[in-house]
Amino acid sequence: MPRLCKPAMSAPEYVITVEETLEFARKAHAGKPQLPLALRLIRNTGVQKRHIVQPIEQTLRHPGFEERNRIYEAESKKRTPEVIERALAHAELPARDIDAIIYVSCTGFMMPSLTAWLINKLGFRSDTRQIPIAQLGCAAGGAAINRAHDFCVAHPGSNVLIVSCELCSLCYQPSADDIGSLLSDGLFGDAVAAAVVRGDGGVGIELERNASYLIPHTEDWISYAVKDTGFHFQLDRRVPGTMEPLAPVLRELAKDHSWDAGKLDFYIVHAGGPRILDDLAKYLEVDRGVFRHSWSTLNEYGNIASAVVLEAARRLMEEDTPAPGATGLIAGFGPGITAEMALGTWAADAPRVLAA
Amino acid sequence: MPRLCKPAMSAPEYVITVEETLEFARKAHAGKPQLPLALRLIRNTGVQKRHIVQPIEQTLRHPGFEERNRIYEAESKKRTPEVIERALAHAELPARDIDAIIYVSCTGFMMPSLTAWLINKLGFRSDTRQIPIAQLGCAAGGAAINRAHDFCVAHPGSNVLIVSCELCSLCYQPSADDIGSLLSDGLFGDAVAAAVVRGDGGVGIELERNASYLIPHTEDWISYAVKDTGFHFQLDRRVPGTMEPLAPVLRELAKDHSWDAGKLDFYIVHAGGPRILDDLAKYLEVDRGVFRHSWSTLNEYGNIASAVVLEAARRLMEEDTPAPGATGLIAGFGPGITAEMALGTWAADAPRVLAA
Repeated sequence: MPRLCKPAMSAPEYVITVEETLEFARKAHAGKPQLPLALRLIRNTGVQKRHIVQPIEQTLRHPGFEERNRIYEAESKKRTPEVIERALAHAELPARDIDAIIYVSCTGFMMPSLTAWLINKLGFRSDTRQIPIAQLGCAAGGAAINRAHDFCVAHPGSNVLIVSCELCSLCYQPSADDIGSLLSDGLFGDAVAAAVVRGDGGVGIELERNASYLIPHTEDWISYAVKDTGFHFQLDRRVPGTMEPLAPVLRELAKDHSWDAGKLDFYIVHAGGPRILDDLAKYLEVDRGVFRHSWSTLNEYGNIASAVVLEAARRLMEEDTPAPGATGLIAGFGPGITAEMALGTWAADAPRVLAA
Repeated sequence: MPRLCKPAMSAPEYVITVEETLEFARKAHAGKPQLPLALRLIRNTGVQKRHIVQPIEQTLRHPGFEERNRIYEAESKKRTPEVIERALAHAELPARDIDAIIYVSCTGFMMPSLTAWLINKLGFRSDTRQIPIAQLGCAAGGAAINRAHDFCVAHPGSNVLIVSCELCSLCYQPSADDIGSLLSDGLFGDAVAAAVVRGDGGVGIELERNASYLIPHTEDWISYAVKDTGFHFQLDRRVPGTMEPLAPVLRELAKDHSWDAGKLDFYIVHAGGPRILDDLAKYLEVDRGVFRHSWSTLNEYGNIASAVVLEAARRLMEEDTPAPGATGLIAGFGPGITAEMALGTWAADAPRVLAA
């Protein structure tokens, strides 16, 4: 069965602390009635700092959608190769052994996707499948793992590279001042992450089952308004409450697999915000500490969109490697409202040698 | 093995003939030195008419990227449901039997993708997987068939709905007057197409093998420049010559399957333009008539991007149903330069009844 090997991650070099965020918000939106609530919400996110691809002064200026996309392209080309090299090293595979690249990113738009450039630049084979996904937002990390799982099952012995490039700071919209926008301005951070799903062998999470779920009639709860100034993130106040309907779906998925969602050995879930993690703990009846890798990702980098599940998986594998056979859950949440879920087991045996 | 059932297609009600296209180009670009060549190229495309979602007067005005996207959303919601219903009917499946929706479209941007709205609106199950792909351009039709194939192999007995929504006229850029842009203005048309890939049973093309190929170092030959005014299509003059390097790749793929690419029973290929089809016939050493379904799609609708392969497949199944066991090739070409290829056999036996 396919295995998710240890991801690699890179956070950009420019750092903004929560104190600086609050100060910028106070200055930019002085006197607005919604400011006090926005400041309280930002403080409650638990985000201590975020990393961004440009100095804060540049980030706060909007140079136009065209220039933003130019920066997106330049920064993604600058930052993805090194992260990919590390992810390949973790999987002990050279680029030529990769059969498909799933590239997920909702913070800039390019056609062709960066996959073409990556194949040309980093020595991937010309017959590498390209699967670029731009419209699943924060759920795309989970979706990428699930589609990589599917690909490896459909093409036995193949390997899939996942690349998540989320430069959320390039979607900052100075003119947006509703509560959802102000909160988002204090929540999202930039990151690039990558991981390999190996069809055979490797050390990592053996992917056993995957599923998706759309909460009915919530398609406008998380969305982009696409304007001349680019992507405007829109967040409905009901989003933090979505774990109540989603927890039973996770329970059911585990039950179908003869597992108990409340008694797994590890949890890798999207850190959309503090209420998401607190509510999920409550409704799954687990200690909030089981989400420690998601909490620390949120605290140190903010919500890094589709890269969260990869970074949380990296922390798990780095900080407290599960015992062989340990059972776990991976779940990404994003626009739709969509949950992309997977169940897997820790596996560390040597690659199988296939007969003939 | 998964089967591509008969696609459905809808061309919008506003029609523009080649004579009207030439007249508009003459007026809009009067006196420009590149105009005569552009007019000759447009005449040579063989496109007789195209269908577009708005009257031509509105199409030629650029109301801004935001308004363009608003129109894209409204028109896609207006036009996809009926086409999807017909595709489901062709596959003899109700919406609740669909396990994944692959939505391909490069002519507007929404997050969430239209998949969420379709699931809510048309009675698909909440656990339907959503696979939106926006960045493979004209190759996305082939990619959608190939990823649907993979999904059905990974999840035996499942069914995948493919939706292609290409409203190319919403990417018309009045200010662009280079040769590539002028040619594109006369080449692309609008269409919505859909098809089901059934995991078991059904009548259609049994998908046996798929592959992808990126021509090295051509990533800027077909691309979007993303500007404040939206997506600007950029076409390199070397694109029409790409069948020379791609034909050997198609030959090799067929050979690996013990088939001869020059002697198949049917061919469903992207109609990028007349030179693409003529060159492919030349380098595969086949009669140009084997591409008749692609030619007629091009003549009647223009290049309808990712919808071409679905419409050409529909024509094949409508006009000259292959004999059981007939062998064929499907190939989409698009930015990258990427070819998405599949090999399949015509199959019309009744659905297998699975034991237990």
